[in-house]
Amino acid sequence: MTAAAVRTIYKTHPDHPPYSDVMSQCVEACFSCLEACSTCADACLSERSVTTLINCIRLNLDCADACAATGRIVTRANKAGNRQPLEAQLTTCIAFCRACARECANHAETHRHCRVCMQACNDCARACETMLNSLRMPA
Amino acid sequence: MTAAAVRTIYKTHPDHPPYSDVMSQCVEACFSCLEACSTCADACLSERSVTTLINCIRLNLDCADACAATGRIVTRANKAGNRQPLEAQLTTCIAFCRACARECANHAETHRHCRVCMQACNDCARACETMLNSLRMPA
Amino acid sequence: MTAAAVRTIYKTHPDHPPYSDVMSQCVEACFSCLEACSTCADACLSERSVTTLINCIRLNLDCADACAATGRIVTRANKAGNRQPLEAQLTTCIAFCRACARECANHAETHRHCRVCMQACNDCARACETMLNSLRMPA
Amino acid sequence: MTAAAVRTIYKTHPDHPPYSDVMSQCVEACFSCLEACSTCADACLSERSVTTLINCIRLNLDCADACAATGRIVTRANKAGNRQPLEAQLTTCIAFCRACARECANHAETHRHCRVCMQACNDCARACETMLNSLRMPA
Repeated sequence: MTAAAVRTIYKTHPDHPPYSDVMSQCVEACFSCLEACSTCADACLSERSVTTLINCIRLNLDCADACAATGRIVTRANKAGNRQPLEAQLTTCIAFCRACARECANHAETHRHCRVCMQACNDCARACETMLNSLRMPA
Repeated sequence: MTAAAVRTIYKTHPDHPPYSDVMSQCVEACFSCLEACSTCADACLSERSVTTLINCIRLNLDCADACAATGRIVTRANKAGNRQPLEAQLTTCIAFCRACARECANHAETHRHCRVCMQACNDCARACETMLNSLRMPA
Repeated sequence: MTAAAVRTIYKTHPDHPPYSDVMSQCVEACFSCLEACSTCADACLSERSVTTLINCIRLNLDCADACAATGRIVTRANKAGNRQPLEAQLTTCIAFCRACARECANHAETHRHCRVCMQACNDCARACETMLNSLRMPA
Repeated sequence: MTAAAVRTIYKTHPDHPPYSDVMSQCVEACFSCLEACSTCADACLSERSVTTLINCIRLNLDCADACAATGRIVTRANKAGNRQPLEAQLTTCIAFCRACARECANHAETHRHCRVCMQACNDCARACETMLNSLRMPA
């Protein structure tokens, strides 16, 4: 439903943004990952073994912030200009998603919330990579 | 899919949060509305009639910021304590969503992105109201 | 320096916003409080006694999110219209700042970062109250 | 005052973060730039010549989002690990600040708010570069 709303808006955007499907999937994946990371951080804080999850909480919070910025910036990514900062943003988001997924993988056996979060991080990294590839292809 | 991830994490959260369905729908609605508002602001900026949409753009940006905070805060809303600030946050989010929906309604005939955004704002207001009602019911 | 930049921009804003000093102090206090809360949460995560600080970390993160939204929304508060959502936002921010200050006060003897954060929260609550009073006065 | 609060918290942080002065200046510069960009976007929206400022508004909003994420992530930058995503984040922030400063420079003669914003963007880019250099130096 979310993706549909953003996709519909892109379809009625006066600039007719190219890659509107790729963009809307990227935005959606960023906010899904933000939700998963923020919720996983909160679940980690309630675990008895919280002292073993400090690095996971920090990475969850970092990844949530990176995804929040990326999601918002991609909603304005309709213009051909200013590619370089946008590409840097997507690359950064991929780096945080991969780092957070790796850390969550360490706890995925023990904590199901870390397993779900790991998947959201990997999904977001892939959606950002697809967006990055679209930007680099000749229009 | 998004709601599913958050809902799954709540189900494995050590605190067994009450209202986990209501919470995950509220989080999801907040981020959907943030996406719609941020994209609608960008579409408005590209309209020829941008000078008639300035108030709409400002409300889109305000509503996006209110929804971003609400979505993140609700991911940590698993605890019974500190209800009063949480209720204030939900009330504020409803106020911005209703104000933005009213403004978007003025342009919904002309701009389909405003119509889609209006719906996302109304959906978010309703999800926040449901969450607020759940908080106020005896557990 | 920060306040000066925002204050200078308000002074050159085409709308000649009223209360520009009160607004810029409010924006500045919100972002100072966001910084303090985010840093205090990180310091708490590194304390040996982290298990006694879980509620403090959650309130730090909530307060940081509320302040981030308020700071951004107040930068657009130059217009007389739409007072009600803005007043709700300021009221919410005060509620989170007071709740976080109360929690930090419990640890202020032991952890100097909680004492500094408590002060930033109280400063922000006061700046939001001043802004709220200005909005409610006849222009 | 802001920088002082963050700097004081870093000084009492259990991890004794290295580069605490550089970190606190970077955090402060990010939030100053966020404030300036968000306020400049609002001032641009009120200009009669708003149709010539659309790209400036978009870059202001992008830069504000990048700075918000960077400021929050740097408050957690006390650990030696996970350098690569942090370096990517700082590099991205510099790219948005430089792009926004260049665009604001085009309007700095006409609009004083763009001149002030340009300075905040350049200050933030420099603070991020200093932080990046500190990370890359042998401890």
